[in-house]
Amino acid sequence: MQASREIELEGHIIDSGVMTMVMDRVMDMGGDFETLVFDIGKKKTDTSYARLRVSARDEGQLEAILSELFRLGAHLPVSTDARLVPAEGDRIVPKGFYSTTNHPTWIKFRNEWIPVEDLEMDCLLVVDPEEKRAFCTPLSKLKKGDCVVVGDDGVKVEFPQRPREGSTFEFMHGTVSSERPSETLIEKIASEILEIKRENGKIVLVGGPAIIHAGGGAALAGIIRDGYIDTLFAGNALATHDIEFNLFGTSLGMNIKTAKLVTGGHKHHIYAISEVMRAGSIKDAVEQGVITGGVMYECVKRDVPFVLAGSIRDDGPLPDVITDVMVAQDRMREHLRGAKMVLMVSTLLHSVAVGNCLPSQVKTICVDINPASVTKLMDRGTSQAIGVVSDAGTFFPMLARKLEELSEKVSE
Amino acid sequence: MQASREIELEGHIIDSGVMTMVMDRVMDMGGDFETLVFDIGKKKTDTSYARLRVSARDEGQLEAILSELFRLGAHLPVSTDARLVPAEGDRIVPKGFYSTTNHPTWIKFRNEWIPVEDLEMDCLLVVDPEEKRAFCTPLSKLKKGDCVVVGDDGVKVEFPQRPREGSTFEFMHGTVSSERPSETLIEKIASEILEIKRENGKIVLVGGPAIIHAGGGAALAGIIRDGYIDTLFAGNALATHDIEFNLFGTSLGMNIKTAKLVTGGHKHHIYAISEVMRAGSIKDAVEQGVITGGVMYECVKRDVPFVLAGSIRDDGPLPDVITDVMVAQDRMREHLRGAKMVLMVSTLLHSVAVGNCLPSQVKTICVDINPASVTKLMDRGTSQAIGVVSDAGTFFPMLARKLEELSEKVSE
Amino acid sequence: MQASREIELEGHIIDSGVMTMVMDRVMDMGGDFETLVFDIGKKKTDTSYARLRVSARDEGQLEAILSELFRLGAHLPVSTDARLVPAEGDRIVPKGFYSTTNHPTWIKFRNEWIPVEDLEMDCLLVVDPEEKRAFCTPLSKLKKGDCVVVGDDGVKVEFPQRPREGSTFEFMHGTVSSERPSETLIEKIASEILEIKRENGKIVLVGGPAIIHAGGGAALAGIIRDGYIDTLFAGNALATHDIEFNLFGTSLGMNIKTAKLVTGGHKHHIYAISEVMRAGSIKDAVEQGVITGGVMYECVKRDVPFVLAGSIRDDGPLPDVITDVMVAQDRMREHLRGAKMVLMVSTLLHSVAVGNCLPSQVKTICVDINPASVTKLMDRGTSQAIGVVSDAGTFFPMLARKLEELSEKVSE
Amino acid sequence: MQASREIELEGHIIDSGVMTMVMDRVMDMGGDFETLVFDIGKKKTDTSYARLRVSARDEGQLEAILSELFRLGAHLPVSTDARLVPAEGDRIVPKGFYSTTNHPTWIKFRNEWIPVEDLEMDCLLVVDPEEKRAFCTPLSKLKKGDCVVVGDDGVKVEFPQRPREGSTFEFMHGTVSSERPSETLIEKIASEILEIKRENGKIVLVGGPAIIHAGGGAALAGIIRDGYIDTLFAGNALATHDIEFNLFGTSLGMNIKTAKLVTGGHKHHIYAISEVMRAGSIKDAVEQGVITGGVMYECVKRDVPFVLAGSIRDDGPLPDVITDVMVAQDRMREHLRGAKMVLMVSTLLHSVAVGNCLPSQVKTICVDINPASVTKLMDRGTSQAIGVVSDAGTFFPMLARKLEELSEKVSE
Repeated sequence: MQASREIELEGHIIDSGVMTMVMDRVMDMGGDFETLVFDIGKKKTDTSYARLRVSARDEGQLEAILSELFRLGAHLPVSTDARLVPAEGDRIVPKGFYSTTNHPTWIKFRNEWIPVEDLEMDCLLVVDPEEKRAFCTPLSKLKKGDCVVVGDDGVKVEFPQRPREGSTFEFMHGTVSSERPSETLIEKIASEILEIKRENGKIVLVGGPAIIHAGGGAALAGIIRDGYIDTLFAGNALATHDIEFNLFGTSLGMNIKTAKLVTGGHKHHIYAISEVMRAGSIKDAVEQGVITGGVMYECVKRDVPFVLAGSIRDDGPLPDVITDVMVAQDRMREHLRGAKMVLMVSTLLHSVAVGNCLPSQVKTICVDINPASVTKLMDRGTSQAIGVVSDAGTFFPMLARKLEELSEKVSE
Repeated sequence: MQASREIELEGHIIDSGVMTMVMDRVMDMGGDFETLVFDIGKKKTDTSYARLRVSARDEGQLEAILSELFRLGAHLPVSTDARLVPAEGDRIVPKGFYSTTNHPTWIKFRNEWIPVEDLEMDCLLVVDPEEKRAFCTPLSKLKKGDCVVVGDDGVKVEFPQRPREGSTFEFMHGTVSSERPSETLIEKIASEILEIKRENGKIVLVGGPAIIHAGGGAALAGIIRDGYIDTLFAGNALATHDIEFNLFGTSLGMNIKTAKLVTGGHKHHIYAISEVMRAGSIKDAVEQGVITGGVMYECVKRDVPFVLAGSIRDDGPLPDVITDVMVAQDRMREHLRGAKMVLMVSTLLHSVAVGNCLPSQVKTICVDINPASVTKLMDRGTSQAIGVVSDAGTFFPMLARKLEELSEKVSE
Repeated sequence: MQASREIELEGHIIDSGVMTMVMDRVMDMGGDFETLVFDIGKKKTDTSYARLRVSARDEGQLEAILSELFRLGAHLPVSTDARLVPAEGDRIVPKGFYSTTNHPTWIKFRNEWIPVEDLEMDCLLVVDPEEKRAFCTPLSKLKKGDCVVVGDDGVKVEFPQRPREGSTFEFMHGTVSSERPSETLIEKIASEILEIKRENGKIVLVGGPAIIHAGGGAALAGIIRDGYIDTLFAGNALATHDIEFNLFGTSLGMNIKTAKLVTGGHKHHIYAISEVMRAGSIKDAVEQGVITGGVMYECVKRDVPFVLAGSIRDDGPLPDVITDVMVAQDRMREHLRGAKMVLMVSTLLHSVAVGNCLPSQVKTICVDINPASVTKLMDRGTSQAIGVVSDAGTFFPMLARKLEELSEKVSE
Repeated sequence: MQASREIELEGHIIDSGVMTMVMDRVMDMGGDFETLVFDIGKKKTDTSYARLRVSARDEGQLEAILSELFRLGAHLPVSTDARLVPAEGDRIVPKGFYSTTNHPTWIKFRNEWIPVEDLEMDCLLVVDPEEKRAFCTPLSKLKKGDCVVVGDDGVKVEFPQRPREGSTFEFMHGTVSSERPSETLIEKIASEILEIKRENGKIVLVGGPAIIHAGGGAALAGIIRDGYIDTLFAGNALATHDIEFNLFGTSLGMNIKTAKLVTGGHKHHIYAISEVMRAGSIKDAVEQGVITGGVMYECVKRDVPFVLAGSIRDDGPLPDVITDVMVAQDRMREHLRGAKMVLMVSTLLHSVAVGNCLPSQVKTICVDINPASVTKLMDRGTSQAIGVVSDAGTFFPMLARKLEELSEKVSE
């Protein structure tokens, strides 16, 4: 072992699993370590401190190992300023650029730690030297000349800590199974929503068209009307079928009340889009009395902003749909700022898209009938997601009922 | 084409799809046909009649083709008696034995058509010459000397006819999707249950342990208490976890009300079994006041018979579990006689087992979170099954509510 | 029954199932029918002819019923010209517009039947009176003043007929199951591909990124190099991970050869995109020697056109990605013209998008590890699709081997 | 906090995650802890030692917490003998019985630590005082008077330690995804099999009938013929369809080579069973030349023992099937002794059954097309399982090829 360096770790590094991961990573990558100092917190509220000497075959391997450890919150005893390199062209990254995690991050700039804004994973760190601010910047928005952080020096990550006391929300972190008590889970989600709303926290709903097909639209509309949702992300399909249901009582031509295909029903979604077209926009259609109820209607009435992102399978699409996906992505990013909870229902595509843009401390709930969808979301890095395996058609009516029951209990 | 024979078809042979299947089968198998007579029913209530000459390369191919057509309800213009061959040993079939469909079947015996009793698919036809009765006999029960029907002569099948008027139940025959309106489907199931109960029809529930894990146990217990279920088929797991829930509030050690794992909870199912053991049986445990509620409790209280079939993954098992699977199968067969509806929830193994023993006119509903489970059931021959993709934890509470609402409406 | 009309049907209307569907539809919709004439084809190659009087409560119901029957190929004994109404605005449909099926369609214009071009489902029929041509036009491309066909008059549909002899390809139409012999299915697909290529038919591949993650990329690249694929449809993810694999041996940071996550691997896809950015385009990167192998490389080398459609979850994206989904959709439409086979692998989104644009006679194969994906595709109207439940990582190596074996056999 | 006790932990307690879990558990359960001693191993091969004082509201809560910690390998500084209580009746457990984990376990008896034999999870510990041996005993085999360990005193568990160097096999512990490189995973499984066979280790295959339906039977038969499998666990279906395939070339009536349903094919499985019945047993049928190839044939020829366990969906069953599930379970237990690897393919029922009986150090691989099946197996406690999402019809041919390639490489 030719190369070695000392690193420090501090915080609740044992119960958060950080120490375990640090040692694992070193051994997985063929390195070695020696524990120099280990001050374990005596009480459960005390933090611990560790100093390790990590060694490797050569400088290259050592740097590789350290790079991984830094992502877990480890840092060098002494920090220098982050190294900045200007981008040589739009969307061209400098060699060795720092790629972000979705955990809170700081960079050292002119000997001062400044927090990174607009955090999301797999992005670049760009510093605005004049403003002394650091931004998490997706590749798509990197401009020639942007000051990009390169290497790990002067970057510090705060790995999520286990809460000292059990929280309602931590109920089943990281597990996905159809063998959980659905009603209990839904009640906990309802209770968490109420708690967030009591503190005026922002809740974003990301929904797929199966919500409408499965008959969950009316319940969801009620939940929006009652003020629980602050922003809606969806695609052309959810909005179209919601409006189709309002205009014709069908979704994809099937009568939701009878589960039967309706004569001429295959044309309904085209009519629905065309009617909105004629009105000008969804908002116009609501105001002109064309649309008289449903999810989109409640959004308009309650001033709940919505982002409808286009996809290649869209019919129409509705005039409100943003057909350029990069524009839609940006719009989603803006609306995600400050979100406390994101509820993702029956849409893998949108869930992964939104998950990519979320810092790891946002409460994320993913409801899908297919357990593999939730697993895929976590695999993609949204490891904070809690999965509920249920169908949208029974989920929303039950959630609406639980919200009602719990809020009555509170107001008593 | 060297060999040919005439066959007849009658009934609603066009709208039931029988004519289409007959022609398909002949062409698939390389044969040829000529339509000799085709009297189509003028009105929708009139039946049709067709006589076709089917031809093939040789007698072997012809017989093969005819054998398939007979299973669709085709028959020879003139029928001889069914050919009977005694079984040469227990569970040894004679060459060319007739293998049953799950459709109503008659055999010609001493020049008389007698109906086949205890119908199920993939079985043998055994005739009792003294009693002049014909039975559908599974291989496991074939005894040496039994008179087994061989070949297709003298066997007549009645293929299911499309009902002349739309029935509540036919709502979405043969389709499985998570994109159906769940609430509507569940309401239809509730309405069908009420209709069957009004005529004192028999309803069998086949359930898996996920019902309890997912928190649907209380609602199911209520449904049994209200008299909607006449027989319960399940395994050791459902009964054990139901009793565990009653004794400890947990299922597999997880508290259903909080969704948290409980201290020592991993022992609960063993305790539950042991307590029943001590009492003697589930019934004894209910009568001694050990078990005070839940699915099994309601079954005992309401005199709803249950069959608990063993499986190799069983812990314990409970003293009521039938560990010999062939004995359990027979017990299920007895209880299925006369059933009007079978509701299968969250158990592929039991669903396929029960499906195998069901005549095709029994209304069969299969509820599972995995659409592939329903497809598998249909692939196995239970083509009459209607699939609902939902989770047991939201399905039963909603079914209970719909049953209540609808029965109140009726009694008003 | 107050209203009635006569309709005609001809062709192989029994074995294609059309007669069954016609009667079903009438009864489902509460109508009645009387068979006036029924000339059944005597031999299997003879076509049949039927004339039915369909009746209904009133004109409205009758029209609704007829509208459905026309979609199955029924027509009035005497046809008038199609009724044309100009669109009152861009993307605004006239009331009662004709919505297309994906079956071959003709319209009567100035007393002449002209075929509809660019067929796909759920579109409008627009007539160019000067050119005397009729086009299938998606809502998104409807312009003010376009002559849109309204109502069912003068429109004729040809419902798919069952082939008289069994074809290799029809092997398991409409069934999806993981319990089919994979190797046999893949061999049949290989044989079908070879047959199409012998006649210089066009084959389109629609692929998802799981092809690369699951390690099927090398085999697919070989298949493209051997000239079996004429066009590739994919998204940013497939192309990025394919290029990442070529540059770094990883896909999403995992080394495909060792299945281990690689140090700094989470940056690889960003580097890959950035390198292409620097080169200018994928083609430029191949020509400059940056990309030296893989799926995209073979496409460039073999002049196989590709359409990379954007989605909201895209990182980057690559400069070749079309970020406006409606533009991407149009590009896909152009490339689908004349396709004989479409092979869809591991991508539900793209499969449904492409399925929507396909006439029903194009051979469509959908390979996915999740049987529900195939079912969903068929539910959406692409009923001609054949499903293979397999993983992309074992599918492509086996397909490559079968193509090799079979083509050697032929050339011997 | 009124009650407290000191506990000790030793070994690689940080990188195995044990310390993290201990602290988590205490906090989850509302307790508190103080670290009295923490000697961290300096080097990666050094073990650590910790002494904690755990405290709780009262003795009851404390005991509950300690009970959980003991299962993770914690123990009291001073151990007394395990407390033994005789069972008051067959299958009736004493209150407070110790329920086993699947990790190596010792009990203190007459002041001596003796290892527990026949380890599996969720069982009782029974001591034979005369022989001074301790056995892991399933409830089903508990006899009146058996000396059952009660409480946690004198029981010690060894929690699995992370291997110091990366092993081939640890490649992706605990992850399940269809987005892994299948070919690489299968190659690693092949390499692990070869390594185990070089040391004459025992490999058990647990297989479902989809292996045959999906066309993987021939490849599996080859793998058995080459001596890689030491024991086969399956059900009636796998054996029947394997024999059906040998006798008729079909599986469930479908020709595996053409993927077409065969005339009279629905009878084939009944014939297959009947022929074995006539011969006497599978072995007899092989020896009489009735069965000439396939999975069961190779088992007989290679003297590979098999356990065919009955289930309620069985037709027949074959004379070799053990219809009493508790007897079958025992037979499986016997054959699992000493197994080094268990390969579970396409059978959730058997996989969970076998998983329940496995100590945690046995290498366990679960291959299924449905990722949820693997998750379910892990949820049930078989956390050491590695999941491969693939279909049996492509998995076995590829595994056979990899075994061949790798063993040739070795022998060169």
